Amino acid sequence: MNDTFLKACRGEAVSHTPIWIMRQAGRYLPDYHKVRSQMSFLELCKTPEKAAEVTLQPVDILGVDAAILFSDILVTLEAMGMDLDFQEKQGPVLANPVRCQADLDRLIVPDPMEKLGYVMAAIQLLRKELATRVPLIGFSGAPFTLSTYAIEGGSSKAFWNTKKMMYTNPELYHGLMRKITDCTITYLQAQAEAGAQALQIFDSWAGVLSPGDFAEFALPYVQDIIKALQPAGVPLIYFANNCAGLLDLTKTSGADVLGIDWRVDIPTAIKVFGPDIAIQGNLDPIALLLPEDKLEKRIAAILERGKAAKGHIFNLGHGILPETPPEKAKFVVDTVHRLSKRS
Amino acid sequence: MNDTFLKACRGEAVSHTPIWIMRQAGRYLPDYHKVRSQMSFLELCKTPEKAAEVTLQPVDILGVDAAILFSDILVTLEAMGMDLDFQEKQGPVLANPVRCQADLDRLIVPDPMEKLGYVMAAIQLLRKELATRVPLIGFSGAPFTLSTYAIEGGSSKAFWNTKKMMYTNPELYHGLMRKITDCTITYLQAQAEAGAQALQIFDSWAGVLSPGDFAEFALPYVQDIIKALQPAGVPLIYFANNCAGLLDLTKTSGADVLGIDWRVDIPTAIKVFGPDIAIQGNLDPIALLLPEDKLEKRIAAILERGKAAKGHIFNLGHGILPETPPEKAKFVVDTVHRLSKRS
Repeated sequence: MNDTFLKACRGEAVSHTPIWIMRQAGRYLPDYHKVRSQMSFLELCKTPEKAAEVTLQPVDILGVDAAILFSDILVTLEAMGMDLDFQEKQGPVLANPVRCQADLDRLIVPDPMEKLGYVMAAIQLLRKELATRVPLIGFSGAPFTLSTYAIEGGSSKAFWNTKKMMYTNPELYHGLMRKITDCTITYLQAQAEAGAQALQIFDSWAGVLSPGDFAEFALPYVQDIIKALQPAGVPLIYFANNCAGLLDLTKTSGADVLGIDWRVDIPTAIKVFGPDIAIQGNLDPIALLLPEDKLEKRIAAILERGKAAKGHIFNLGHGILPETPPEKAKFVVDTVHRLSKRS
Repeated sequence: MNDTFLKACRGEAVSHTPIWIMRQAGRYLPDYHKVRSQMSFLELCKTPEKAAEVTLQPVDILGVDAAILFSDILVTLEAMGMDLDFQEKQGPVLANPVRCQADLDRLIVPDPMEKLGYVMAAIQLLRKELATRVPLIGFSGAPFTLSTYAIEGGSSKAFWNTKKMMYTNPELYHGLMRKITDCTITYLQAQAEAGAQALQIFDSWAGVLSPGDFAEFALPYVQDIIKALQPAGVPLIYFANNCAGLLDLTKTSGADVLGIDWRVDIPTAIKVFGPDIAIQGNLDPIALLLPEDKLEKRIAAILERGKAAKGHIFNLGHGILPETPPEKAKFVVDTVHRLSKRS
């Protein structure tokens, strides 16, 4: 098996710098659209064979060094009792947002096998398929990011309702975070038991918090999750998006690997994170539009900067965009492999 | 005249920490809605008497230490020849976005008195009204931020078209930036000549750029503007939003004052900016929802941190939100004045 990804997570020597791409199974791939045309996004998440099929596509097409389960961070909130729907233009909609104690009381901490069994089934299928190929990454949303969806009822711009609850009813907010955290812990434990070989926690909206609020309202729950997952023995990756102002705090998450977006330079991150944390990132997803010679220069610069880290997993600084030409994604994977090959 | 704002910009001793609030003339004030109900947003910008009236409202109602001209950064693009419209839900729409050389060739570098004379007329009116009260701030958008509206044709999420032009047709992109910069320089010079006593450059979207792209495509144009405006002899403020990863670059802008958003702590900014730059900021706009005792604690912490800067102008880390209770804005102003009073 190509285990460069797992080795890099642990800071061990690798034959080349491993690469995977956030949202690598997704809308930029014609093969994905073919599957997706047969069912809704949520049906696809809940059909293990199909979820496994699209998970494998980028492994086959791009040759990435890790697969990441095709799913969505919001299935956790659905499992907790919220009504989840994905609408073509509007994005995710949670019809009954959490705004008061009664809303919170209605949410459950489910048995993951009962409510999210389809995820574990997909993981088991995938481990068989991937056995001699690449490792499989499982994931969940971070509690803060999930709380924004639960409270706003979908995507948001200013996160008015989330911060309003934080500021005017911190007990309710912490109660929601506790429940989401408990659910996330059992969910990620179940993923590891089903065979996920690494786990990533996505904190897509962490970057809307001031350092003080992040430290008070968000980080402790990430630390709890990571602490609870350590006995599972798989590398734990924490990706806080737009985190340039939060580096010294994310450093204390306990994660083996910290993902960084494209807005912060790797040397800056290494300086803060120190010698014990591996780094994942961080090419601007839209830089894939660069002509190949210029794109190669940027890839080379990131690889060069990553050398000083405990370990470096190449990735984009955020999810690949649907408009991206797949051949450019393939070019990035090939170029990372070519340029980073140790003789 | 209360000149604490101008003194703080220059790093001189002040009797109290001055405060003004981004978007202080605007939708959270019932008095603003009264005026706005009589005309469209753009008509309001273009009617000097009315623009002056709403500019004065927060000076009267809140007691802020500076007035900022009521206008919009996008009037520059309209003056350059673009069709500008503000739609209630959708935000600004520029019907003929710049995507090719012919689009760029159609844009002009206007005589500001001819195309934006209404702004200068409002400034002249305001200086008379404000004579014995507080200073007046003029402003413009930064070229990068204006380029995103020109290229995307409005607001954006991923800035796909802007970065696409940067990456695939840098000559065209730099040509657009040059033209916007030339227009901005003459526009800000005209504002200073009309009586603006300080000038702020708003780079609302700077935070979507990697440090390398910011240094190559955005910062040089800000530096050009600031260099060209220095002979005007008024304090120059550069506010790059979401700039935690860009601090060492914004430091080189040449501005007398750098605005910081709430995502970066003031001590971090001071450490990077050094002893020659004053700081403006940086309370999270939604923190105005906090109960008064907690809000006061946050204000006190920011004031305390600001003491180490060359000069400190209290502000929010971003524009005040329309949902904010005006009495909370008044509480912030009063509290800043009370807590920072030097005996």
